[in-house]
Amino acid sequence: MAKTAKTSRLSGFPEWLPAERLVEQHVIDVFREVAELHGFSGIETRAVEPLEQLLRKGEIDKEVYVLRRLHAEEGADDSGADASRTLGLHFDLTVPLARYVLEHQNDLVFPLRRFQIQKVWRGERPQVGRFREFYQADLDVIGQDSLPGHVEAEVAIVMAEILDRLPLPAFTIHANTRRLSEGFFRSIGLEDHAAVLRNLDKLPKIGPDKVRELLLSDAGASEEQAQACLDFASIRTRDASFAERVRELGGSGEMVEQGIAELTAVLERVEAAVPGVILADLSIARGLDYYTGTVFETFVAGHEALGSVCSGGRYDSLAADNRHTYPGVGLSIGLSRLVSRMLSADLARPARAVPTCVLVSVTDEEHRPASDAVARALRGRGISCEVAPTAAKFGKQIRYADRRGIPFVWFPGADGSDDEVKDIRTGEQVVADSAGWEPPAEDRCVQILAGQAGGEGGRA
Amino acid sequence: MAKTAKTSRLSGFPEWLPAERLVEQHVIDVFREVAELHGFSGIETRAVEPLEQLLRKGEIDKEVYVLRRLHAEEGADDSGADASRTLGLHFDLTVPLARYVLEHQNDLVFPLRRFQIQKVWRGERPQVGRFREFYQADLDVIGQDSLPGHVEAEVAIVMAEILDRLPLPAFTIHANTRRLSEGFFRSIGLEDHAAVLRNLDKLPKIGPDKVRELLLSDAGASEEQAQACLDFASIRTRDASFAERVRELGGSGEMVEQGIAELTAVLERVEAAVPGVILADLSIARGLDYYTGTVFETFVAGHEALGSVCSGGRYDSLAADNRHTYPGVGLSIGLSRLVSRMLSADLARPARAVPTCVLVSVTDEEHRPASDAVARALRGRGISCEVAPTAAKFGKQIRYADRRGIPFVWFPGADGSDDEVKDIRTGEQVVADSAGWEPPAEDRCVQILAGQAGGEGGRA
Repeated sequence: MAKTAKTSRLSGFPEWLPAERLVEQHVIDVFREVAELHGFSGIETRAVEPLEQLLRKGEIDKEVYVLRRLHAEEGADDSGADASRTLGLHFDLTVPLARYVLEHQNDLVFPLRRFQIQKVWRGERPQVGRFREFYQADLDVIGQDSLPGHVEAEVAIVMAEILDRLPLPAFTIHANTRRLSEGFFRSIGLEDHAAVLRNLDKLPKIGPDKVRELLLSDAGASEEQAQACLDFASIRTRDASFAERVRELGGSGEMVEQGIAELTAVLERVEAAVPGVILADLSIARGLDYYTGTVFETFVAGHEALGSVCSGGRYDSLAADNRHTYPGVGLSIGLSRLVSRMLSADLARPARAVPTCVLVSVTDEEHRPASDAVARALRGRGISCEVAPTAAKFGKQIRYADRRGIPFVWFPGADGSDDEVKDIRTGEQVVADSAGWEPPAEDRCVQILAGQAGGEGGRA
Repeated sequence: MAKTAKTSRLSGFPEWLPAERLVEQHVIDVFREVAELHGFSGIETRAVEPLEQLLRKGEIDKEVYVLRRLHAEEGADDSGADASRTLGLHFDLTVPLARYVLEHQNDLVFPLRRFQIQKVWRGERPQVGRFREFYQADLDVIGQDSLPGHVEAEVAIVMAEILDRLPLPAFTIHANTRRLSEGFFRSIGLEDHAAVLRNLDKLPKIGPDKVRELLLSDAGASEEQAQACLDFASIRTRDASFAERVRELGGSGEMVEQGIAELTAVLERVEAAVPGVILADLSIARGLDYYTGTVFETFVAGHEALGSVCSGGRYDSLAADNRHTYPGVGLSIGLSRLVSRMLSADLARPARAVPTCVLVSVTDEEHRPASDAVARALRGRGISCEVAPTAAKFGKQIRYADRRGIPFVWFPGADGSDDEVKDIRTGEQVVADSAGWEPPAEDRCVQILAGQAGGEGGRA
């Protein structure tokens, strides 16, 4: 296809065709529906934040897109010298949430239950599965000064219900708690627990042998301690039996028992709500300086290389001012990355390419009002339809419906004869009345189906 | 309220509280639902376009936000010298649509029926009602090389149905066609019809006396011709009677009669679909170099100073390459501006501030699983609920529900006794079973109601 200069695909900025967008919209709809069922309020924050806010987490500063007005005045807000007035696009929804909570704390009721589905931007070099613009879908419960521990399971349950309703292969939510890891490392005599966790976090990337070397050189472990840490990190159980194995490896003391109780409670509550998806996985570490309780990562069977599709956990300070501290529990789905995989691996597809259920044909332009009236009657009962753009021969109008993926063509009756409707997939044509005709339930709205690759049922 | 350095409201970047967001979400939902009922496909385009694309419409180049990566390499894509590689945020959804249509023309079926609801950015100086980041909601039908005239009425009908479903005061869609204006000016001897239209376009701002002066000095009109133009522009009729008045003023000839036929057809079709909203208003001019057929502007009664809330029309070339030209008809709602007015003027408000219908109370932490089970049963039947965050005294749990705006509090029965549910608005408390209890229909989901200022019924 000869492209003109006016078109320009940009690497890292995904864009869907209308039929593909139906899948993305479905994922967004499911997220919102389940979140609202659990009493979460949707919010949106502005796309920009002052650059100095975005740079508080030093490690990602290279990824920020900075804005300037094209013809801004000299010395105006894009000089770059004054970071408090320079604006950048947000790269996640957590920094904006922290700012939103502080800014509106007197108008919010805590614990705040909020979900947020918005695009974020990162100026990274694009790679496969890495986008520069993508949807993130976040779910957080934020307390004022305190937040009960049972919220950790609650947020995981909502995410499990969301994933369970999507046409995905089996998924597993891997859970750990920081207290258990820290308590174990301390109880076998390793005081620099942060170093141990930092090294164990590299297991998926560099493997146990290299991690063992790091534990010896970096975390001050003996051969025996290093082995105990690797054994600890290899524990994965669907039930509370992880506890016995931790104790067998030498884990003991108050902190270990507290961690065991916490993780067991999370397993039991998630299992009761959405059976078969939660797994105790003591290798899960995640952002040490941020998370303070249960941490979660989620993997889709057969797509483990995609990495975690839903991650997060408990943090003790999302934000703070001189009056309050705001602890929270939050999980986040990299929605565009997930949708991109669902489309490219044919995990999901729309039953048809357009919302339209019925094309009302037009006998001749003079009779277009009759076709309009049929369409109006059908729409009045919630049936999506459009009227043929031209009064071409019926065969051509049927081919138009076929090309757009519209399943039914309606023929208004001429001179008092009955209307008829044709299912163009089967060829069946029947007499019909626009005041009462119903399409099959599955044709009323566009269903999102599991693709050929099989996305049936989300549970392991 | 003492603000810390971390919070910073930005002028021109609106942000809603959770309850306000429910109103915005409702407007978006209604737009999408009606558009899909008419067989329009939703798409989204990336937020960025190459700067050179954004600058094709010279007149708004000052408003563009340009992006650069914070730590971009020397000579990389943010040098500014190479406009083809510099990216800017889109300032409307029309430039991206033109690019999308050309880029995906082989994968799209024409006429393309698309709606698009996305944020756009303009680096203008913020004023009252002017935002730097705002939602725009567009509806367009795009043909390949040709597009039938009846689409002009069709797009107006969809927009009328959308506005009609919103809690707004009466609204009126003002329509005109360029052919009628041009034909009239020519038939009274004014050849520079573009200049006449350009001057008439200033009527709302500078009034008839100043426009008369301009018609004399700028458009070469005689006193009599200027008066005829002003009389022409003052014609406003709900029905086809505008035609007689145009002829009385001296309008004649093929172009005038064609314009009359076109505008009459639009009036009749819109009136048949959504009675009482369409008005022939021969003062409507709009972007001369762009629109080529019917043009529309929409005003809300009592809020005329807000300007047109929904505008657009027919254009003969959205985009073109060496094989095809893409004509279209499009209308656009400035959604954030409309929602902002709905909120500030109390035209609409949510029946409650949160999606939650029921707060399930917790007797004590040991019995939290019983409360979880009640919530699960209610959610299974689509009733939004949350479980109380702490097992405080029931009075405190009820006050928590009240503060959040949750209408019902559920009390799980202890030791085999029945569950009960209380409507905290009336105080009424009844025995209930989580497997079958139903809230009143109006409490199931959050209704968006007309506010005190009265937004009942959208038709004039």
